[in-house]
Amino acid sequence: MKVLSDIEIAQKTQLTHIKNIAKKLNISEDDLELYGKYKAKLPLKLINEETIDRNNLILVTALTPTPAGEGKTTVSIGLTEGLNKIGKQATVVLREPSLGPVFGIKGGAAGGGYSQVVPMEDINLHFTGDFNAIEKANNLLSSLIDNNLQSRRNNLNIDPRTIAWKRVIDMNDRSLRKITIGLGGTANGIPREDGFNITAASEIMAILCMAKNRDDLKQRIGNIFVGFTFDKKPIFARDLNAENAMAILLKDAIKPNLVQTLEKNPAIIHGGPFANIAQGTNSIIATKMGLSLSNYVITEAGFGADLGAEKFLNIKCAAAGLNPKCVVLVATIRALRHHGGSPTDQYNVPSVERVEKGFANLEKHIENIRKFSIEPVVAINTFSSDTDEEVELIKSKCATLGVKAVVSDGWAAGGDGTIEFAKAVVDVVENKASKFKPLYNWKSPVVNKIERIAKEIYGADSVEYDNKARLDLKRIDALGFNDFAICMAKTQKSFSDNDKLIGRPEGFTITVREIEIAAGAKFLIPLLGKMMRMPGLPSKPASEEMKIDNHGKISGLS
Amino acid sequence: MKVLSDIEIAQKTQLTHIKNIAKKLNISEDDLELYGKYKAKLPLKLINEETIDRNNLILVTALTPTPAGEGKTTVSIGLTEGLNKIGKQATVVLREPSLGPVFGIKGGAAGGGYSQVVPMEDINLHFTGDFNAIEKANNLLSSLIDNNLQSRRNNLNIDPRTIAWKRVIDMNDRSLRKITIGLGGTANGIPREDGFNITAASEIMAILCMAKNRDDLKQRIGNIFVGFTFDKKPIFARDLNAENAMAILLKDAIKPNLVQTLEKNPAIIHGGPFANIAQGTNSIIATKMGLSLSNYVITEAGFGADLGAEKFLNIKCAAAGLNPKCVVLVATIRALRHHGGSPTDQYNVPSVERVEKGFANLEKHIENIRKFSIEPVVAINTFSSDTDEEVELIKSKCATLGVKAVVSDGWAAGGDGTIEFAKAVVDVVENKASKFKPLYNWKSPVVNKIERIAKEIYGADSVEYDNKARLDLKRIDALGFNDFAICMAKTQKSFSDNDKLIGRPEGFTITVREIEIAAGAKFLIPLLGKMMRMPGLPSKPASEEMKIDNHGKISGLS
Repeated sequence: MKVLSDIEIAQKTQLTHIKNIAKKLNISEDDLELYGKYKAKLPLKLINEETIDRNNLILVTALTPTPAGEGKTTVSIGLTEGLNKIGKQATVVLREPSLGPVFGIKGGAAGGGYSQVVPMEDINLHFTGDFNAIEKANNLLSSLIDNNLQSRRNNLNIDPRTIAWKRVIDMNDRSLRKITIGLGGTANGIPREDGFNITAASEIMAILCMAKNRDDLKQRIGNIFVGFTFDKKPIFARDLNAENAMAILLKDAIKPNLVQTLEKNPAIIHGGPFANIAQGTNSIIATKMGLSLSNYVITEAGFGADLGAEKFLNIKCAAAGLNPKCVVLVATIRALRHHGGSPTDQYNVPSVERVEKGFANLEKHIENIRKFSIEPVVAINTFSSDTDEEVELIKSKCATLGVKAVVSDGWAAGGDGTIEFAKAVVDVVENKASKFKPLYNWKSPVVNKIERIAKEIYGADSVEYDNKARLDLKRIDALGFNDFAICMAKTQKSFSDNDKLIGRPEGFTITVREIEIAAGAKFLIPLLGKMMRMPGLPSKPASEEMKIDNHGKISGLS
Repeated sequence: MKVLSDIEIAQKTQLTHIKNIAKKLNISEDDLELYGKYKAKLPLKLINEETIDRNNLILVTALTPTPAGEGKTTVSIGLTEGLNKIGKQATVVLREPSLGPVFGIKGGAAGGGYSQVVPMEDINLHFTGDFNAIEKANNLLSSLIDNNLQSRRNNLNIDPRTIAWKRVIDMNDRSLRKITIGLGGTANGIPREDGFNITAASEIMAILCMAKNRDDLKQRIGNIFVGFTFDKKPIFARDLNAENAMAILLKDAIKPNLVQTLEKNPAIIHGGPFANIAQGTNSIIATKMGLSLSNYVITEAGFGADLGAEKFLNIKCAAAGLNPKCVVLVATIRALRHHGGSPTDQYNVPSVERVEKGFANLEKHIENIRKFSIEPVVAINTFSSDTDEEVELIKSKCATLGVKAVVSDGWAAGGDGTIEFAKAVVDVVENKASKFKPLYNWKSPVVNKIERIAKEIYGADSVEYDNKARLDLKRIDALGFNDFAICMAKTQKSFSDNDKLIGRPEGFTITVREIEIAAGAKFLIPLLGKMMRMPGLPSKPASEEMKIDNHGKISGLS
């Protein structure tokens, strides 16, 4: 049988009008802001703080991933289908895909196989315009900064060499990483170095996803740190009177988007901050919206649990007062082989020995989740190269730890492939009484917060600080930003800050190179390595294989 | 009485659901692609080529404008209200405003006073995402070009110094006019000079507005001229296999948008090419959509009739086979005083003498319109500083030429202020039997086409070519692009290429400095001066006065 591509499966599916999905959530048609027949924005008034804590929040995260990723989005969608199949009212709440990577190597991010959210073309392209709105808000601030450098009226005396705010574009475009702007004479501004990040890496994205409401959004935007004056005074976006106009550009982007899964269950998709230098999870508003409308809410966070779950729990849940009832750890046999020492070209070669060795990685993630007083479930996202022996080994090793491990076959079978998995999650939610508590208090000293993450989550022996990081700590203190959350920027390939250390490394030291400030998001971002904020296109861009016909039908999008 | 601002008037108006507007055009609800309750995209299948020529196309253009503009959009909307008041089924078909200028000096472009299209906040901000889609399609091509420079696979040997394709952003941002990109080492691409234009100046915008359907769009995109190889071979977007992916990004942007006027009449808004270096009028698809659905279609074209109407008629109508039945020339007493020699600070000081002298400008525009075998109507867009004597003078001078001049008071009174005006237009349509013919044949030699416009429309004695322009003519010939339309890039402030020559200048020479190629749009663009493609922000940006509250209510947007 020919294996259908994601877009072929998505296009074969008869979608239902989004008002029918809304009906499942008891949303009146009048409250829906339709974007065509299959997408809608939801008004913020549907958030009901009283309902939120009565419903069940499930986080889907993963073991330390291979470069292909372990399929968290697919598993999240599959679990949602399964929960609905066993009679639970469940909604999946996801991040929005970024447009840039659609034309690069990564492709879209709307799930895969028979666990997708649809319409996948729309979701993977401009969707309802949220990324564009974020981009414009970000770039309006840039333009206001450069305009102020140029202007004699209300000139803030900003030192162009200190400007920390970059422009953004939702495109994979390496040649915009480092640029010089303002060239060509006095009419064209003040020459200075600049660069573009991809939109998902904008602090505006992080802020939108942390904001509780429009006023909070506006205040956070006003707090964005721009740079210093020549006499070393910090300048914020509010000094440029930028926060209202920027919030106006985000007037619709702040509202979560409703779509559907292939099995016609509700999916709320909103926000998409990078998981390396930001929180890597969808908006607080969307998660609260889901919990206001649905008994089970399934959400995900980027990369492995050392990054995604740690930030989800310590930053998002702590800030929003959310109490997750279960954490799903996605594992693939392929990734376990990798952590057991399998070379890349043997990822698909069965090896009980390697899987057993690689289990150490998963075990550490299980231990970590329990440090937040939450019970994990392990979901084995299954591939055809998996053997029964390997799967059974994981199940029995998890059982020894008192953790249920179940196969998730949502990619090939949708909700029919995730029923046992869904039952395992319900069992944890109903019987294990998770009582979430964050790992650290935001009010503790910065170095203590970093140390707790490094030692307790990563398993490091110690933390070192480069000179730049030490200076940054002083600057943070001087600016009064000590009580911000820690948003670690670390490789996703290892518990450590060294790509090469697979499995469960021990006896290592973490080095903080510098610490960035995201004052609007209220994050301090310790950089443990070089973080990519603007991807490039591959030598054969995905765009070359895409087609559209005269009726608008698209193929080759993945 | 306090004069309400545009946004206050717009927000006071109770909008009707867009499905009720669609009903007036006999569009079934199922064909509407809703964007919220008050905006919708219209499917291309509603275009009916057989109906188009039976209905009446009216162009609204203007005399040579002052910097504030003469209110063509406001007059177009007002006329539509008036026509509906006198029982005609009329739709206004407009360009989409650009986001950048909303934060600059110009503000929005959704009409004014009691002649507006609504919801004005949405229309002036992201609207339905068309500008963003155009921006992304443009910038995907840029990224593909720079990726090809960097790539060893399928390297096209493009000479980076010859790349004619720039990036775009819908933002007033002078410091992006001239930049260097690809800095920072081998991973970041090949260093070269580049720059950003505002999105409205993108050739993609011009192409979208010239395209007949998706296939035509795709083909035109493929024809975009990118630059030369090191061995002087021309490179087009199709050489980068870019046209499908770019057309995919435009899959929704190609569909026109339906909104409403303050008096709940239909407004179709689509596309917004710059009027200085592009055609300055909305899409062929939108105009045809209007004419497929409505007995009267009112549309506008940017700047004065020497630019807007000339390009509308010779480019758009010629390409699309459209036959306008009447041209409205908007005049303000203020602009007539200006052309009669009034200094800027005396624009509001009545002067019959100056108005009489300034009439020469309007007279030349009247003569020009008649060169296309179309009858004009003069609409005096009235201001409180106008005197009866000045208005009567214009009416009688027009009458001498056999032209009806009427006061248009749509700004203050909506359709009640444009009834006489609407009747005058209907009289021309029904009784004057305009039989449009273009001024030149696209197949004539390039220099002949330029000369006809310069002499017959501008009133120049002769045309001179700089060296660069002579080389460009050779290049155009070598590339086989002689039969493209001429899209003049000239100051809007004078019939000539010299800002200072107001009124009806005579005895002047036009100098063509260079000739750009827009091979996808099928334009040759003779540059008669320095054209602005990226505006800057003013020293006090409009953004500073904007406000949004916690409920999303906006103020200070104009």
